Amino acid sequence: MNKEVDLSRFNIRTDLTIDYVDNNVNLNGVKYKEDTINGLKVTCVNLDKNNDLNKKKGKYITIEFEDVTDSKNEEKVTEVLTLFLKKILNIKYNDLGLIVGLGNINSTPDSLGPLSIDNIIVTNHIYNLDCLSSNYSRICAIKPGVMGDTGIETSDIIESIVKKIKPDYLIVIDSLASSSIERLNKTIQITDTGIHPGSGIGNSRKEISKDTLGIPVYAIGVPTVASASVIVKDTINFMYKNYAFNKEYKNKNSNKLLFNANYLNKNIRENKNDKQELLGFVGTLNDEELQLLLKEVLDPIGYDFMVTPKEIDFIIKKMSNIVSNSINKAVHKIDKCI
Amino acid sequence: MNKEVDLSRFNIRTDLTIDYVDNNVNLNGVKYKEDTINGLKVTCVNLDKNNDLNKKKGKYITIEFEDVTDSKNEEKVTEVLTLFLKKILNIKYNDLGLIVGLGNINSTPDSLGPLSIDNIIVTNHIYNLDCLSSNYSRICAIKPGVMGDTGIETSDIIESIVKKIKPDYLIVIDSLASSSIERLNKTIQITDTGIHPGSGIGNSRKEISKDTLGIPVYAIGVPTVASASVIVKDTINFMYKNYAFNKEYKNKNSNKLLFNANYLNKNIRENKNDKQELLGFVGTLNDEELQLLLKEVLDPIGYDFMVTPKEIDFIIKKMSNIVSNSINKAVHKIDKCI
Amino acid sequence: MNKEVDLSRFNIRTDLTIDYVDNNVNLNGVKYKEDTINGLKVTCVNLDKNNDLNKKKGKYITIEFEDVTDSKNEEKVTEVLTLFLKKILNIKYNDLGLIVGLGNINSTPDSLGPLSIDNIIVTNHIYNLDCLSSNYSRICAIKPGVMGDTGIETSDIIESIVKKIKPDYLIVIDSLASSSIERLNKTIQITDTGIHPGSGIGNSRKEISKDTLGIPVYAIGVPTVASASVIVKDTINFMYKNYAFNKEYKNKNSNKLLFNANYLNKNIRENKNDKQELLGFVGTLNDEELQLLLKEVLDPIGYDFMVTPKEIDFIIKKMSNIVSNSINKAVHKIDKCI
Amino acid sequence: MNKEVDLSRFNIRTDLTIDYVDNNVNLNGVKYKEDTINGLKVTCVNLDKNNDLNKKKGKYITIEFEDVTDSKNEEKVTEVLTLFLKKILNIKYNDLGLIVGLGNINSTPDSLGPLSIDNIIVTNHIYNLDCLSSNYSRICAIKPGVMGDTGIETSDIIESIVKKIKPDYLIVIDSLASSSIERLNKTIQITDTGIHPGSGIGNSRKEISKDTLGIPVYAIGVPTVASASVIVKDTINFMYKNYAFNKEYKNKNSNKLLFNANYLNKNIRENKNDKQELLGFVGTLNDEELQLLLKEVLDPIGYDFMVTPKEIDFIIKKMSNIVSNSINKAVHKIDKCI
Repeated sequence: MNKEVDLSRFNIRTDLTIDYVDNNVNLNGVKYKEDTINGLKVTCVNLDKNNDLNKKKGKYITIEFEDVTDSKNEEKVTEVLTLFLKKILNIKYNDLGLIVGLGNINSTPDSLGPLSIDNIIVTNHIYNLDCLSSNYSRICAIKPGVMGDTGIETSDIIESIVKKIKPDYLIVIDSLASSSIERLNKTIQITDTGIHPGSGIGNSRKEISKDTLGIPVYAIGVPTVASASVIVKDTINFMYKNYAFNKEYKNKNSNKLLFNANYLNKNIRENKNDKQELLGFVGTLNDEELQLLLKEVLDPIGYDFMVTPKEIDFIIKKMSNIVSNSINKAVHKIDKCI
Repeated sequence: MNKEVDLSRFNIRTDLTIDYVDNNVNLNGVKYKEDTINGLKVTCVNLDKNNDLNKKKGKYITIEFEDVTDSKNEEKVTEVLTLFLKKILNIKYNDLGLIVGLGNINSTPDSLGPLSIDNIIVTNHIYNLDCLSSNYSRICAIKPGVMGDTGIETSDIIESIVKKIKPDYLIVIDSLASSSIERLNKTIQITDTGIHPGSGIGNSRKEISKDTLGIPVYAIGVPTVASASVIVKDTINFMYKNYAFNKEYKNKNSNKLLFNANYLNKNIRENKNDKQELLGFVGTLNDEELQLLLKEVLDPIGYDFMVTPKEIDFIIKKMSNIVSNSINKAVHKIDKCI
Repeated sequence: MNKEVDLSRFNIRTDLTIDYVDNNVNLNGVKYKEDTINGLKVTCVNLDKNNDLNKKKGKYITIEFEDVTDSKNEEKVTEVLTLFLKKILNIKYNDLGLIVGLGNINSTPDSLGPLSIDNIIVTNHIYNLDCLSSNYSRICAIKPGVMGDTGIETSDIIESIVKKIKPDYLIVIDSLASSSIERLNKTIQITDTGIHPGSGIGNSRKEISKDTLGIPVYAIGVPTVASASVIVKDTINFMYKNYAFNKEYKNKNSNKLLFNANYLNKNIRENKNDKQELLGFVGTLNDEELQLLLKEVLDPIGYDFMVTPKEIDFIIKKMSNIVSNSINKAVHKIDKCI
Repeated sequence: MNKEVDLSRFNIRTDLTIDYVDNNVNLNGVKYKEDTINGLKVTCVNLDKNNDLNKKKGKYITIEFEDVTDSKNEEKVTEVLTLFLKKILNIKYNDLGLIVGLGNINSTPDSLGPLSIDNIIVTNHIYNLDCLSSNYSRICAIKPGVMGDTGIETSDIIESIVKKIKPDYLIVIDSLASSSIERLNKTIQITDTGIHPGSGIGNSRKEISKDTLGIPVYAIGVPTVASASVIVKDTINFMYKNYAFNKEYKNKNSNKLLFNANYLNKNIRENKNDKQELLGFVGTLNDEELQLLLKEVLDPIGYDFMVTPKEIDFIIKKMSNIVSNSINKAVHKIDKCI
């Protein structure tokens, strides 16, 4: 059985830069730093102009966390996101910031952007009034909607408003597609490089960046959906890890598949023969080849659809609180959110 | 008791042109025509450049109706609104129309505009695709939000998008303030003159018109709120009408105040002495003076607030269906709404 | 002009016991106490079994406050409501409380009950699990809906669930009709006498009380709507107060009607002749007669409708936070709300 | 490699009776009939008291269809569902029906029940009024909520209301878990056997049936979520089908994996050697064994979560229209929905 999957046919994208860096420590033009802040893993990737990832020069910060419907986790993530927003944002006194909530308010998994906007403290229209404490920064905010509802390219709406009101910087909030089950609703990426073609959940979008708008564009993204093929790819890998773990740690003399909670965290040497015994030809494919095969299998019958956990309504509500509260704390000098 | 109310102190506005025309048949520059279509009273006012109303030159069409939560009334109003939209809209083949829903989606009585947009059939982004039947016109649509939420002048958002996407005409949907109980949620005004300063429910807004945007601006407005002073003014007038009716028709020899259902429709000669006997000094004031006095009484204590009927959620839902279905039928060549 | 208004024809109701007590200090069976707590006026009325108000024996506590969309006011009201809920509620260890949110979630001014339920910390189904801290009381909660939507008497739904799950006490949350502009959205009434016929905003409802259910029924009510006749009645009274104030304090030699901010707080002696000069026959009516006349004028033409301020969406959101947070703090031993 | 998966450890459930019947024509106590109505596949399964499926005696009707966000499909499904509801419902003149919308209105994929209730035409409270045409049947409706929000067993709420208002029959609407990708949001099951333990999306629920309530309980269910393991199981099967199809039909001399749209509909003979070559040990498992293995792999690491397509908001809206319109047409003698 030959591997004749045509690797170039599909344009598999992941929206998270960190996905490309994992296990690739020797890339050119890529600086990588991992930290644990407040119990959360934070990864900072700095890309030079010429980098092996072929991505835009700039900073990419990824915060990883557990279920945010737990209010303690919600607090932790808010703190860490606030901290790193303060680090990455470069705001001067009197600067006008425009916060943009991308996505569709009527589609739960795509509503993170517009929902977050609802809690942003907007001050631009009252900035010169005495009633406003000097702690507040100049902020305005829009929910441009989605092209399916407006009939207008979202980037055109943003560009035209930027031209008119001349903000000094943009913060764009967006839902992303996840390239792994493990990151789904459990990762926030901040970057100073804006939004790029092909990002987002399936809709090809035009670039929104300093190159197109002339001002810094910070982007905050959370993966809220994953394709069926991502779920299958990860599960097939889990199958082998579970099997190998059981073989190595538990039943040296057996090949039983046993119930066990911790196998993901273990470092397990991959054994090619074992993998092929368990998974056949499929076990010989690397991650990229496997996902291509899965797309070949699922696309023609319409089942490589994007899915989201059934608890998405509660997750999105919490996540939008995290994003809006963190922005409010990072741009305004306030401790407590209104 | 002298009338020393300062008439110039308050700037009492009504958003409905028809309010200025009622009972004023001999105004210069004003052409007035009343009709009954499908059982509904429709009034067309044409204003010349120089007109006694001091309003913008153009057409003002007012449709009056009963409770739209009755589905038969809803159908009737949709038919008549569609008819007059078709008459007033001047759309050429291939023209791009931008529908703008003014107001606040989160404030029920102010949500007519954005709610209507949700049902508009938007085609601009798929206009050149073969899948779209040639019955459809080129339409895009936005909900610009309100300045309190965006921090940006709504007219600036509209202007900048108009510059970018260059529509051939605008249709603006808005909630208005009513100058009489009888028109509250029971009138739709269409005009080809756009939106003007001071219109809307209390927020001073910049003009949105051909003068400012360079393209025709049609406006559809429904009065969804009324001030307390409007309610009191109307009721005081009703008190006298009820009294006079009873005196003239029912109890020629009595001045009892009796329960009766039809007094509003009757033509009753006003008797100044009777009115003053019933209402004292207040009975000697004309409508404008009365409302000024009421504002003087209510404003300083904060009670000239805007109110809306408690059924407003149901009314707005129906009204937004009427507006969006009528626009869809008027701009697209479709009989049935999607 | 004779007063031949038939006082018995209309059944004018106010839902607030305090309305009957104002200025009536010498009623039998009525104990009345006024306090200022945290800057808010709190009135406690204790009614004996036989009382001149012809109302149910029990405690009626009324808290008065200013605009709750101001977050400082919101905090104050939450504190005071929590305090008095703790006083009036008589809960023993292990008691099961059923919180009932009356009203229509789809009608903003009537949605206080169901909206409040959304934030109640419900513990009954997990009460015996170890994970639940001993600070929590046993609580369950329902939104029974309205008869127009369910086709079932709301009191029947409550009664049947009470029979089945046997709670030890009920707390019922409801929207009320206001009998004065000044109390609209600015008063909370707590009582241990339950909900009684004719209460609520126009829908005749069956009694929900210890008499019908056999367990203590506490009720929390907020007036969120007022009828047009209430607005007119209050305004006509304001007209005279404004006039009298101006005459007495400002322009002893004049009868000008002047703009002034403070006249409501002033004690002004009523002068019958002045009142009649200003308001004619209408000026000779007492409050009850005036409102009857207004109902006679407005009812037959359909304009004695219930209205609510146009900001009602924002007010109800805050008010439901106040009610649910206060209940959570009063029944559970927690300081901070989840 | 031995198959030592313990088949009894997991209780894999599917909520659709049809899943057990597929390809099992020789079951005892099972009558099976397939039809095509209006282009849709409809399967009627009649179970005798003693049947090999170990399921409740009664009728199970399954309607299969394509994407209901297409309005033509929506119409078709409404027609067929109405038809079969009329067949299965056994309503006498004057019977009172109680429609129950199970599920959580605040969780999109679980909101089918309560959303459907919003459109049910409820008549019980006005059934004896002259205004109601004799076309209407006696209907009431409730949304009992979920135990996580109420703290009360949902079946207790239903049981207590049934006792009080004594309906003649129940119609229960619920969201289900799908046991295959292909049925997700593309199947409606009607049954006269009510709701049974373990049904629904993960929450163990008490039985709601004639046995527990004493009246006929009809249930309408739509699978709106699927577990990750279902998606992986189906995809692994698709992988082999795709491979076998390519081998057999396209490239007799090749084993390339090629892009092809139609392989699912083809009858392909399974070749055990081929399957094991492609999928190794995993290829030797039958469906049940495969899903058990997947649960063993995914459960301990928390990834056998329930997911729903990202378009779920739009799908649920349409599906609830279909369900409520069909019920309205089936119980009332009306052609057009209000």
